[in-house]
Amino acid sequence: MHLLEEKIKKEGRVLSDTVIKVDSFLNHQIDPQLMKEIGEGFAERFQQAGITKILTLESSGIAPAQMTGLSLGVPAIFARKRKSLTLNDHLYSAEVYSFTKQQTHEISVSKDYLTAEDTVLILDDFLANGQAALGLVDIVEQAGAALAGVGIVIEKGFQDGRKRLLDKGIRVESLAILSSLENGEVRFAEEEASV
Amino acid sequence: MHLLEEKIKKEGRVLSDTVIKVDSFLNHQIDPQLMKEIGEGFAERFQQAGITKILTLESSGIAPAQMTGLSLGVPAIFARKRKSLTLNDHLYSAEVYSFTKQQTHEISVSKDYLTAEDTVLILDDFLANGQAALGLVDIVEQAGAALAGVGIVIEKGFQDGRKRLLDKGIRVESLAILSSLENGEVRFAEEEASV
Repeated sequence: MHLLEEKIKKEGRVLSDTVIKVDSFLNHQIDPQLMKEIGEGFAERFQQAGITKILTLESSGIAPAQMTGLSLGVPAIFARKRKSLTLNDHLYSAEVYSFTKQQTHEISVSKDYLTAEDTVLILDDFLANGQAALGLVDIVEQAGAALAGVGIVIEKGFQDGRKRLLDKGIRVESLAILSSLENGEVRFAEEEASV
Repeated sequence: MHLLEEKIKKEGRVLSDTVIKVDSFLNHQIDPQLMKEIGEGFAERFQQAGITKILTLESSGIAPAQMTGLSLGVPAIFARKRKSLTLNDHLYSAEVYSFTKQQTHEISVSKDYLTAEDTVLILDDFLANGQAALGLVDIVEQAGAALAGVGIVIEKGFQDGRKRLLDKGIRVESLAILSSLENGEVRFAEEEASV
């Protein structure tokens, strides 16, 4: 996704060695045309996987998940974040620890929309340490559904999220992989490899 | 939007005389193809309005807002909900009272993405008493932007949200208008008119 990397280079604001803000097209303002191409990018990678549902987490995952669902012709589900555990038999739920916010929140999905018949593609805007993705994997497992893989818009390649997912045998496809944000500079995995 | 009304009839679950759940295609699971047609529906209505930005509220507004932005070729911004007021000079913020949750939350938009040069279409999934829409209107006013109108996927025609917006001289376009949810039955405004 050359277009995505260009957008990250041009509009991403590096706040520290580990944090980049992409509020102008992904997390707060959405560029629908770019998001459509992102959806097509994931659809291409997972075309043969027999996906029946896209699963993501509110809010920033919704835009890419919806466009991927549109391309693959399947529904997109967004897990809800909840502040406290509420007893509800009709929900799959998992706990997700956020290193950024230093707090644990519960995420949940209605049992109506995910079953053992489904083949799920998990999508998220960022992959850092993999906590959110692993929470979604937990929910897919609870549903007894098949997991086709995890699709990520921007992977922080210098954190261990990918390793944690690969260790569980999960396929990971990222459209852009950041190799470093050091010195306020965005570097992509491919670039480094070619130097 | 005949398709939307059919979907509401078929999949909406009436929980009370004022509450309908449409989790299967709008608020939790998203039907991307329907959402695309919803986006086209709004785009058609506001084609001549010179829209430069779509503004919505996380999370359920994101899917229709993105598709409308795609159809009109403009970015979609989703206001963030925040639990507490945080001092931040670079945000427009407004308070929104939720009758359902009986609590007030702050919504905010970065000043980077909304300016006096913009012509804004506000979008939301539901219109009931208009609190969320009015909060978004407040933000558009703070930005000094022009407001083209408010687009609503499902309007509860038996509540006063529309009146509150019209009283402020705001154009309101709803794709489906519920006239009643009494006796567990979904009735649309058009139906009633034709009886």
